[in-house]
Amino acid sequence: MARTQVGIVGAGPAGLLLSYLLHAEGIDAVVIEARSREYVERRVRAGVCEHPTVELLREIGVGARLDAEGLPHHGFSLRFDGEDHRIALTELTGKAITVYGQQEIVKDLIAAHEAKGYPVEFEVSDVALHDLDTEDPRVTYRDSAGNRRELVCDVVAGCDGFHGISRPSIPAGAIRTFEREYPFAWLGVLARTAPSHEELIYAYHERGFALHSMRSPEITRLYLQVPHDEKIDAWPDEEIWSELALRLETGDERFSLREGPILDKGITPMRSFVTEPMRYGRLFLAGDAAHIVPPTGAKGMNLAVADVTVLSRALVELLRYNRSGLAESYSDTCLKRVWRAEHFSWYMTSMLHVDPAADDFGRRLQLSQLRYTASSRAAATSLAENYVGLPFA
Amino acid sequence: MARTQVGIVGAGPAGLLLSYLLHAEGIDAVVIEARSREYVERRVRAGVCEHPTVELLREIGVGARLDAEGLPHHGFSLRFDGEDHRIALTELTGKAITVYGQQEIVKDLIAAHEAKGYPVEFEVSDVALHDLDTEDPRVTYRDSAGNRRELVCDVVAGCDGFHGISRPSIPAGAIRTFEREYPFAWLGVLARTAPSHEELIYAYHERGFALHSMRSPEITRLYLQVPHDEKIDAWPDEEIWSELALRLETGDERFSLREGPILDKGITPMRSFVTEPMRYGRLFLAGDAAHIVPPTGAKGMNLAVADVTVLSRALVELLRYNRSGLAESYSDTCLKRVWRAEHFSWYMTSMLHVDPAADDFGRRLQLSQLRYTASSRAAATSLAENYVGLPFA
Repeated sequence: MARTQVGIVGAGPAGLLLSYLLHAEGIDAVVIEARSREYVERRVRAGVCEHPTVELLREIGVGARLDAEGLPHHGFSLRFDGEDHRIALTELTGKAITVYGQQEIVKDLIAAHEAKGYPVEFEVSDVALHDLDTEDPRVTYRDSAGNRRELVCDVVAGCDGFHGISRPSIPAGAIRTFEREYPFAWLGVLARTAPSHEELIYAYHERGFALHSMRSPEITRLYLQVPHDEKIDAWPDEEIWSELALRLETGDERFSLREGPILDKGITPMRSFVTEPMRYGRLFLAGDAAHIVPPTGAKGMNLAVADVTVLSRALVELLRYNRSGLAESYSDTCLKRVWRAEHFSWYMTSMLHVDPAADDFGRRLQLSQLRYTASSRAAATSLAENYVGLPFA
Repeated sequence: MARTQVGIVGAGPAGLLLSYLLHAEGIDAVVIEARSREYVERRVRAGVCEHPTVELLREIGVGARLDAEGLPHHGFSLRFDGEDHRIALTELTGKAITVYGQQEIVKDLIAAHEAKGYPVEFEVSDVALHDLDTEDPRVTYRDSAGNRRELVCDVVAGCDGFHGISRPSIPAGAIRTFEREYPFAWLGVLARTAPSHEELIYAYHERGFALHSMRSPEITRLYLQVPHDEKIDAWPDEEIWSELALRLETGDERFSLREGPILDKGITPMRSFVTEPMRYGRLFLAGDAAHIVPPTGAKGMNLAVADVTVLSRALVELLRYNRSGLAESYSDTCLKRVWRAEHFSWYMTSMLHVDPAADDFGRRLQLSQLRYTASSRAAATSLAENYVGLPFA
């Protein structure tokens, strides 16, 4: 039996960042993770860091590689009616976003833990949470060698994602969930080719949504809207390229889609999901364990960062000074931002995708909304301020 | 048989304003109307004039009474979570709206026609349109004395509203229609009492939407969301007042709902409807004959004013100079504004009403949208610029 102040389940951005923030404040924490270090460092996920996320990573000293290798973007394009309509993020809000893969942040945080000697245990199994409604919650698991372990904590942080064990450890009836499934999915590819455009392109086309993005000057990330039950086998590489070319085409000869070897491809379902409250007894949920957004607004990882920023302050107050105010308000504080992000993600998703159930009236509204957003400074600013990230609470 | 350049069917704001604009440019026009003068002058409809509508009425010399009796409003309240969140229209956009009943504009326009001797025939019947795809379209009808009349025109303007005969005179297949029915209606009352608040209040309440508005310092106009198939008999006056009080209540003791004798009450269905194109041969549709918006955004009459502003310019070009460019582009020009207004009206309607089919997720999104709109200058400006009226094309 071991003891720690905060037992953190999950070594994604939420768990690692929470651990790092707590240690920096002198709070003891242990991170356990079911996957291997190699796996989490290679897991391709989000790639857009909000302004407040970048600021935070810099502030705590883990932003050096992000500053060196991340790609700051000062705008992106809405592409529809065969042409680009730029949303000038920095001109409209004074802020930018940074394209830097989630797995790169994970690498940086693991390296920072290693350098400081903060404990992260990979490849654990049989994780279970106990006594969550007491002041001594416990985490049991097997370590990578197969030995049974028990960690007695003051607090457990559930940072193990949508499919993790933390949320299901809460008794039925103690939390309420809100959910929406979208009638489409994203087929994403990672390709070894320079991006075809210096900025992101969110394209609305009558054949469906497409997104042109990038991970580095050599790696392009591209997405296609596909039916929600689509199988990846239905999409040979050449069909992916031809569909992308169709949806991203413009009347402008200066744009042509660069093709290259596809390094990875997969299908991501589109779902919204929220847990209320984000706490049960001494278990605090953060990140995807508590909420999911469709990827259109690029909010998933950024919400996780916001959650653990609020949670770290609350836990310092609780565990160092025995003041529970911030812990009591943790869920309400986070949920305001979560619902803002859910609404923004729904707005971006519904504005940019072809809804197979929409009628002609709905399609006309959608086009009017796109044209208005591209032509009104107020509407573009509203989109931009959400995209670059509203200030952390 | 008589001849005129423009035969105008309908003496609502669209038909009367078009006639006035054309006569001012030396184009001959005749307005015919099925109802009596008394009826159209008393018909209670819209009450919010956009900034461009007010500017136009002033410019053409029919704004004197509007300036004297209309109530300029520099903001309105979104009321939710039990408190007011003011949308500061003038601070955000530099413009205001003017509360002045549609029937007052109709009175002013009829008086202006009378003063100048421009013809308006009331109480006509059996109106029919003929030869619309020729250069000599005809309008046949019986005058108020029952005599058969025929008016040969260069152009016919269909300004006779959603239930008029103009749109159904277009052959099936020549136009396309877009429609949405909302699952609720508005119960509206006109009451003899001073307004309870100096500005309009758009209230979102879990029991349903309510709107506090006014027609004059002595007359209040109030609305309640009710089911779409509601009968007015189900609402005795005292129940209307108690429901209004519930939905408009705040935590602030300074607000209390003033009651008074109900002068008029009725139920308005909520519908969106658009015709594309707004023209068939030599018949041009304008106002409600071509499109309907739900009343939430206060756009119906203002769209009619915008339509006939564009149409009058097009007809001057066509009939004085035989240039058809503006007539050819009439429909496209108007439809851009129409779809903007349809989208804005849908946005206001969906943000403020309780949708009986919404799930918990949808209700949370709605609250997040309201809170964001009330707290973001960009979002409030976007709402405000649509509400005060985007510039006429």
